[in-house]
Amino acid sequence: MPTLILVRHGQSQWNLENRFTGWWDVGLTEKGVGEARAAGELLAKTGLLPTVAFTSLQTRAIKTLHLALEACGRLWIPETKDWRLNERHYGGLTGLNKAETAQKHGDEQVKIWRRSFDVPPPVLDAGGPYDLSTDPRYAGVAIPATESLKLTIERVLPYWESAILPVLASGETVIVSAHGNSLRALVKHLSNISDADITGLEIPTGEPIVYEFDDQMRPGERHYLKDR
Amino acid sequence: MPTLILVRHGQSQWNLENRFTGWWDVGLTEKGVGEARAAGELLAKTGLLPTVAFTSLQTRAIKTLHLALEACGRLWIPETKDWRLNERHYGGLTGLNKAETAQKHGDEQVKIWRRSFDVPPPVLDAGGPYDLSTDPRYAGVAIPATESLKLTIERVLPYWESAILPVLASGETVIVSAHGNSLRALVKHLSNISDADITGLEIPTGEPIVYEFDDQMRPGERHYLKDR
Repeated sequence: MPTLILVRHGQSQWNLENRFTGWWDVGLTEKGVGEARAAGELLAKTGLLPTVAFTSLQTRAIKTLHLALEACGRLWIPETKDWRLNERHYGGLTGLNKAETAQKHGDEQVKIWRRSFDVPPPVLDAGGPYDLSTDPRYAGVAIPATESLKLTIERVLPYWESAILPVLASGETVIVSAHGNSLRALVKHLSNISDADITGLEIPTGEPIVYEFDDQMRPGERHYLKDR
Repeated sequence: MPTLILVRHGQSQWNLENRFTGWWDVGLTEKGVGEARAAGELLAKTGLLPTVAFTSLQTRAIKTLHLALEACGRLWIPETKDWRLNERHYGGLTGLNKAETAQKHGDEQVKIWRRSFDVPPPVLDAGGPYDLSTDPRYAGVAIPATESLKLTIERVLPYWESAILPVLASGETVIVSAHGNSLRALVKHLSNISDADITGLEIPTGEPIVYEFDDQMRPGERHYLKDR
């Protein structure tokens, strides 16, 4: 039975500091490392062993994947990394903490950017400290200047359809290690969640979310592995 | 300029215990972890940053790759794992330490197996503790029962030609994280070393070996990165 396992990366340094991260590359905290290992231990314990892996181009998701795979003895499975699984690009909010953002833009506006489906934050300053245009990891990629959740979904879903779904359909147990918003994109699609509801859906860090697919490749109910 | 970086995995638990490891999957020691990180730090320091990675299906080489890539900020590069980069399969010697092997087979015979180019050790006991025939990582692979260095080379070189060389020829800086004997196979080929001489050539752990290729894809002299 084709099975999909979604894992949001463990706590990152900027999660801890409450800063908008987006495409900026930050590492995991010690807590995040522990969450990643625990996810892998849970996979081992329940016998749900991934056979193919996908992740983003961001260290926190890649490390989470590696730590989880090592903990379940699956470091050897094939792994593909793609920018389309990256976190939502937070544009000009990148690097700001909650207090700084509220001070700069006002609480109401911040709430709109966080909660709205299709309102992107202001664009990132070109040439500023968080400009990634010269980062070789994104060579050839049209790096967004900012993204709403809607725009994030518009680059995640084509990748799902073209790269992940065919592998899943061949009967593999696929693990996707990614980010709050790239995983929201997948969960919205697979669980048929409305534009209004998806922005309020929290994807917990390091807790494997599982979908099983029938022979028509229709996804069943999503469940947390720990609920089993 | 196409550049090839070869890295032998850091010290493993069975290197430390002086046991024949071959295809058995063992982890790195703390020293091995340090060697892998140091290799990555050296890449960062010298600015020789890999753009594409290849490794074996064995944890010690995969972890060495990940630790080195993390240390040089390149965890995001594409990575391909293949059994043809695995260590030489030591057959029936797998799991034995030096003293046990000498006791069982005699010092002279052990020297022949270690030093000869084309004499494989006895085959692995089917159904014994080191039998990998039910390991899902090798599903679809004709697992050898034992290998000489010659046999190892015979599966490494076709992979070099078909998978690694074309990527290198496209101008990439390729890192291969692998094992003493799969790397001997590559060094023998690239540096044109005789059958008699290759068995005595030691590949040090965690020290990047570099080849630069000209526009005819002819390799230059091999050098250790630390020699620069």
